[in-house]
This record gives sequence, C-alpha cells and structure tokens, in this order.
Amino acid sequence: MELQMIMTPAVSLPQGVRDILPTEAARINAAQTAILSVFDMHGFQRLITPLLEYVDVLSLGMGPNLKERVLKFIDPSTGRVVAIRPDITAQIARVVAMRMRDYPLPLRLCYNENVLRYLEPREGKSREVLQIGAEYISAVADPAADAEMIVMAAEALKAIGLKNFKIDIGDVGFLRIIIERLGITVQERLTIRDAIAIKDTSGLDEILSGLGGRISADDRKLLLNLTTFYGEEEVISKAASFTKDPAALRSLENLSKVVAIITEKGFKDSVTIDLGEVRGFDYYTGIIFEGFASGIGKPILSGGRYDSLLEKYGYPCAATGFAFDVEHVVAAMDKAL
Amino acid sequence: MELQMIMTPAVSLPQGVRDILPTEAARINAAQTAILSVFDMHGFQRLITPLLEYVDVLSLGMGPNLKERVLKFIDPSTGRVVAIRPDITAQIARVVAMRMRDYPLPLRLCYNENVLRYLEPREGKSREVLQIGAEYISAVADPAADAEMIVMAAEALKAIGLKNFKIDIGDVGFLRIIIERLGITVQERLTIRDAIAIKDTSGLDEILSGLGGRISADDRKLLLNLTTFYGEEEVISKAASFTKDPAALRSLENLSKVVAIITEKGFKDSVTIDLGEVRGFDYYTGIIFEGFASGIGKPILSGGRYDSLLEKYGYPCAATGFAFDVEHVVAAMDKAL
Repeated sequence: MELQMIMTPAVSLPQGVRDILPTEAARINAAQTAILSVFDMHGFQRLITPLLEYVDVLSLGMGPNLKERVLKFIDPSTGRVVAIRPDITAQIARVVAMRMRDYPLPLRLCYNENVLRYLEPREGKSREVLQIGAEYISAVADPAADAEMIVMAAEALKAIGLKNFKIDIGDVGFLRIIIERLGITVQERLTIRDAIAIKDTSGLDEILSGLGGRISADDRKLLLNLTTFYGEEEVISKAASFTKDPAALRSLENLSKVVAIITEKGFKDSVTIDLGEVRGFDYYTGIIFEGFASGIGKPILSGGRYDSLLEKYGYPCAATGFAFDVEHVVAAMDKAL
Repeated sequence: MELQMIMTPAVSLPQGVRDILPTEAARINAAQTAILSVFDMHGFQRLITPLLEYVDVLSLGMGPNLKERVLKFIDPSTGRVVAIRPDITAQIARVVAMRMRDYPLPLRLCYNENVLRYLEPREGKSREVLQIGAEYISAVADPAADAEMIVMAAEALKAIGLKNFKIDIGDVGFLRIIIERLGITVQERLTIRDAIAIKDTSGLDEILSGLGGRISADDRKLLLNLTTFYGEEEVISKAASFTKDPAALRSLENLSKVVAIITEKGFKDSVTIDLGEVRGFDYYTGIIFEGFASGIGKPILSGGRYDSLLEKYGYPCAATGFAFDVEHVVAAMDKAL
C-alpha cells in the first residue's frame, strides 16, 4: 500500500532544496577542499555556526534585504520565532561580539555551511545555498584587509582551476558620501539609489532634474556619470575629477590603495572597478565586490566591508568578508570545460 | 536602543544548537577530513542531501523512534509539513531509490551533513548533530559488506588517532527470529523486547513465566541468557548451543563470517559481540554496531543493516550503514589526550 503511494510522485522535495548526486557532489567537495586550503594558507580559522537562530537575535545583524528572505517557524518548545540561518556573516558577527572578545584582533575566520533563504520572498521561492566564506575582523578598517580578501578570493578560484573570472570592485562608501551630502529627503535618496542600482541613467536624469536647485551641477554631473566609472584603475582618478568633497576623495584614495595592493600581488587582471554598483547599499559600508565567471549569470562570490555590523551586537569592529556560492562556482567550472 | 536590548541576554540561541569556536572547530574539521579520506580510500562516493524534506516522504524511511524526533513546521509557500532532516540514511534511501536506479550495485555512498533531532521529544530537547556516515547498498545482504563497514569505522577512528575505542556488534536479526517464532501477541513481544533493551533479566523472567506453556523451555533459557552472550567470538557458539532453529543458526553463522573477516583484517581487538543489544529493533534487520570510547558516555558512531528500508521507496535492496557523531568523536579524542 505504502509502496504504491510513493512510487507515484517521482521526486518530491520541498521547494528550494535538491539532491546532489555523486559526480556533482565530488566536484563540490573538491572545490570546497581547495577553497578552504587557500583560506587556511592565509591563516583563516574555522568557525562552526548553528543551523538555527532566534529571529530577533539574528535580525540585528541582517540588512533589510536579507530580513525578508528568512525562513521562520515557531519553536514548539519555547514558542519563540526561530530562523533557519539565511547567511553566516550575521552569525559570525554575533559569535565574535558575544564570545570572542578576548581573542586578539584582527580575527581571520572562515566557514563552510549550508544556509536557506528566499530568493523571491513574494513568490515563496527559496534556495538552500552551500556557502564557503571568510570574514576579516579588525579594530579599524584598513585597505590592506579589503585587498587581502579580494586577492584570497581570486587565489581560491585559481586554486580550483577556474580561469575565466572577474571580480567587480565597487565602493558603496563613496556613493553614500555623495548621496547623503545632498540636501534631499530619505525618499528622494532611495529613488536615486534605485535608479543607480538598475543603471537607469535617463531615469536618474529626470529625478535629478526634479530636485532643481537642491542639487549642485557638480553632484548632478557626477551621479549621471557613475555608470562610466567602470573599468581599470584610471576610473578612480576619473571619478575624483568630478568631486571636491574631501570625504569622497578620501574614499577614492582608499580604493586606490586597495587596487594598488591587488596589482602588486599580481591579480590586476582579475579585477574590474565599478563605482556605479550599489548592491547592499544599506548593509555594506565601503568596498564591495562580486565575482563572475563566463557562462554563469549569477555571481559566484560576493562580499564587502560592513563596519557597522559588529557594533549592533555591542562590539564595534571593522570587518570585511565574502562568501562563495559553491554550486555556482562548480557550474562555472563545468562551463569552462 | 537596539544595542542595549541585546547586550543583556548574553548568548541566546535556540535550544539544541551551539557555536563552535576555532579550537574545537579545527579539531572537528581535522576529524572530518581524516574520516572522509578513509571513506574515499574504500571507494565511497559523496552525496549531498537536502536540509529539508516533506515529512510524509521522509517518514517512509524512518523508524518509529526517529519519527517522533523530527523538528517539523508548515512550509508557508505550500502549506505542507516540512522537516529539518533528523538523519541522512532515510534521505539516501530515497535518493538511491528515486534517482540512482541506473547506477550499478553495490553502491558505496557517504555524506558529511548537519541534522537536527529531538533527543527527548517530550521535553522538547533537540540537538544539531554533525554526522559523517557511509551507506553500502547492494542487491543482496552479504556478511562481507557488514564487515567492511565495521572495519572502515575502526580504520577511520585509528586514522584520527583514537586508540581507546570498542565497536559493539549485535544482531537484531537473530533476536527477531527467536521472538517472532514465539506464539505470543505483538504486545507481549514488545514487553519482552523492552525488558531485553534495559537488560532487566529478572523482569524478563517474570514476563516469560507469565507466558506459561506458550514458550518452550529452550526459548526461555535462551532469552534469559541473552545478557551473557557478550564478549569475544566464542559467544556466537555459546548462543548457538541454546537454539535448534535453522534460521537463528543461519543468522549466527552469518555473524560468525562477519567476525572472521574483521579478525582477518586485523581489527579483532576493536570489537566486542553483544547479542543482548536490541537498539533499533524495529528499523534494523541484521547486524547492528555501535562505537564507544573511554570517557564518553554516548556512542561515537552507530549503524547497522537495514534491508527493508529501500523497498519502502520502491527499490528493494539490501543495505548497511553507519554514522559518526563528529562532536562525540572529538570529545573522545580530547579525553584521550
């Protein structure tokens, strides 16, 4: 009886999860081992974080984008709302802030865990993601740390044999300085950010025109030229020529240092600068980066600086980190064959 | 405001999960790597199974003991009851039956995953367990497969440097033959099994007396002597001297073959026979085994033969498997330091 009942639905799994059969599992495992060994060579130590968290605790450390992507349920034993972790970074921030304050900084930490998140919360579309990532936590922000993370990501991709990849480097800190200095409302800022996010220059032009005299000709020119700040290191000086704001210029100088270190380490060809990228604008605080490989539409890695996260758990520290989506990495390797 | 709110509760995590800090995480990681490399040498291939399953699908492959230990919730997008996997074996049975029928048998599969289960469901006590395990799936049961799994478990423990361990080998198949042949009710069988499970010989004596003429003097003697069938291989012939049942004798002969292969491979000293062990009586079908290390009250590994599991997913196959509880393994290593 039972037998017949289950032979009918072929493979019935909850939305967002899947079985990974031996050939692919072996490739994932090989990629994980190679990546973790590069992390190890850089002195990154493993942390193992819990599968579940209380939503109220974890929410402190999640950007608004991530908060709505959490799979939640009521813990029957306590009645509290529990989340399956949608990301490891917030957990590491919590662990460091609550349990590792006596460890000397900087802390180099890494992980290899499964997370579960909604991709499109409104459609209930979720996905289990196999994440391998690293976090660099220090007393103060340092361009050398941003560079180290980007170099380490590139080294790991080379270690697993991937050649056709690029890491796009942006800086939400720069853009935040420019936008927050404008004498405009929060709503107007968000509209500007959204237009930039989808690289809609003509839409942005309209919005800026609507602001009339509340925005200077220089700022307007800079914002409308953001999409052109894309390419090699010369785009940094190009962006600098559009502004006189000391904070914005300091931010570009910092980016310049990051790129110089990456170049010195021999990874210039692996990176591209994109100052028009505003991914994670509300969460990241400085340099952001994302890795792409030919043939794969989704990023294979993503990360950035999040200097305001740890203080939400009561331990103000600077931090930068990134994670590989291992399945995307392996898909990129398959495309490259 | 937020800051103050969260500095009060020190570390607030859902019951059953925990943070694993770098020193312990490194030891767990080293143990995982060593175990997986022994599995690899034996030709076991990795599978990666999903974190979530529909309860109705997974339940087919879970013993009654495991079913009540599942953390369940309603998937908001479908309204179906979803489980966080409490174990990997049932998942592997499902994957093999539904997606790997064109793979030649025997199949040697392994995994390294986190599961979540209630330890004491009534008290709502759960635990996230880091499981590394292996499953050997074949067309027919073969004592060589049971022996290979036990030897591989012992090799893995030696590979990670653990010396003071013992693997207890039982056989629920033998006991099932004895008990099922008795002309008694299901309830009476369960009462007998429970008395045996807690090694309550005087209680068992009372129960058997209560059965009067419905149980032969021989069977009664055998059951009351079960706890003495504990030790080295001579206990097999001792048990055989208590029964004339051909099926029971065949079962003991099979156990004898398993022990002979283990001895031949040089792992005689790592095993003990315990025919009074009935763990997983309703789930396992033959040889069962559990590994213990000095100083650790909980088993560091457990497994056995489950020849009736895969047919519940429509693919009748023989199978044996086991899993390490990696945290218990690492705790055992710490005790041995």
